[in-house]
Amino acid sequence: MALFSKDIQTLDDLFVHQLKDIYYAENRILKNLPSMMEKASNPELKQGFQTHLRETEGQVERLKQVFSMHGVEIGSVQCPAIDGILEEADEVASEVEDKQVLDAALIAAAQAVEHYEITRYGSLIAWAQQLGRNDCAAVLQQNLDEEKATDKKLTSLAESRVNRSAA
Amino acid sequence: MALFSKDIQTLDDLFVHQLKDIYYAENRILKNLPSMMEKASNPELKQGFQTHLRETEGQVERLKQVFSMHGVEIGSVQCPAIDGILEEADEVASEVEDKQVLDAALIAAAQAVEHYEITRYGSLIAWAQQLGRNDCAAVLQQNLDEEKATDKKLTSLAESRVNRSAA
Repeated sequence: MALFSKDIQTLDDLFVHQLKDIYYAENRILKNLPSMMEKASNPELKQGFQTHLRETEGQVERLKQVFSMHGVEIGSVQCPAIDGILEEADEVASEVEDKQVLDAALIAAAQAVEHYEITRYGSLIAWAQQLGRNDCAAVLQQNLDEEKATDKKLTSLAESRVNRSAA
Repeated sequence: MALFSKDIQTLDDLFVHQLKDIYYAENRILKNLPSMMEKASNPELKQGFQTHLRETEGQVERLKQVFSMHGVEIGSVQCPAIDGILEEADEVASEVEDKQVLDAALIAAAQAVEHYEITRYGSLIAWAQQLGRNDCAAVLQQNLDEEKATDKKLTSLAESRVNRSAA
């Protein structure tokens, strides 16, 4: 994102910029999920990360579709937010010895990732609609719905099992 | 967070660690809000940032109260997630020339901050309850309620005015 001139002139530019930001973020998450899966002990959590890995692959494909629908080249801009969220996730995980406490920490880390995606897709969808691109908004909405469902599943797993085991 | 030994042994340790993380984050946000206020053009958005600045001061005080209720010293751990989210907010804002488009970008940035806080307070409250600290959970819930209300206000301002002006 460290460009040398003011490259965002219109709402359309902002939309494309943020599309590249979330495309970068989804690809980073895709790379990070196997390590979260490996660190998890609770079988449901492991399985949840596995399922979300497959979902994320589909989300990356949907983003490519939105680039194409909107007539712009697929691209990424570095996203310090997701870099920071994942760096923090790794740092906290590396501080935890106990397997059950680690599961609780992994869920919190994964939910921070989900919330980042939820807020970004929320803005993207609102901007797409404002730009008259309801077609793009509808595809992005599918990603948003999946992120929200994943976040809910993580809350339910934390509250029903993982936090109790950790305590 | 870059410690030299595995310092998080129990769910209580994880709770205190994350309390220090959000304490750092709230203080960073407190320092950042005046510059967001300054960059905003829409008077409602400017006023919203001003109101949230006062709320954030109250949230920092509530966090101090939770440290004290839980019998631990007030402290911070560096939080790469909020650092990254705020760095990205500044970078995107510096790329935008048009005032109305900048307002749309500022709202998205502020919502990314809110969502980070929402997820962190959500985990903290669940862990406090699991640890039998409903007193701490109740105080944290007040912060969570304010963050959720701010996020909703930002969505409504974006959808009712700012995105239309930007388009």
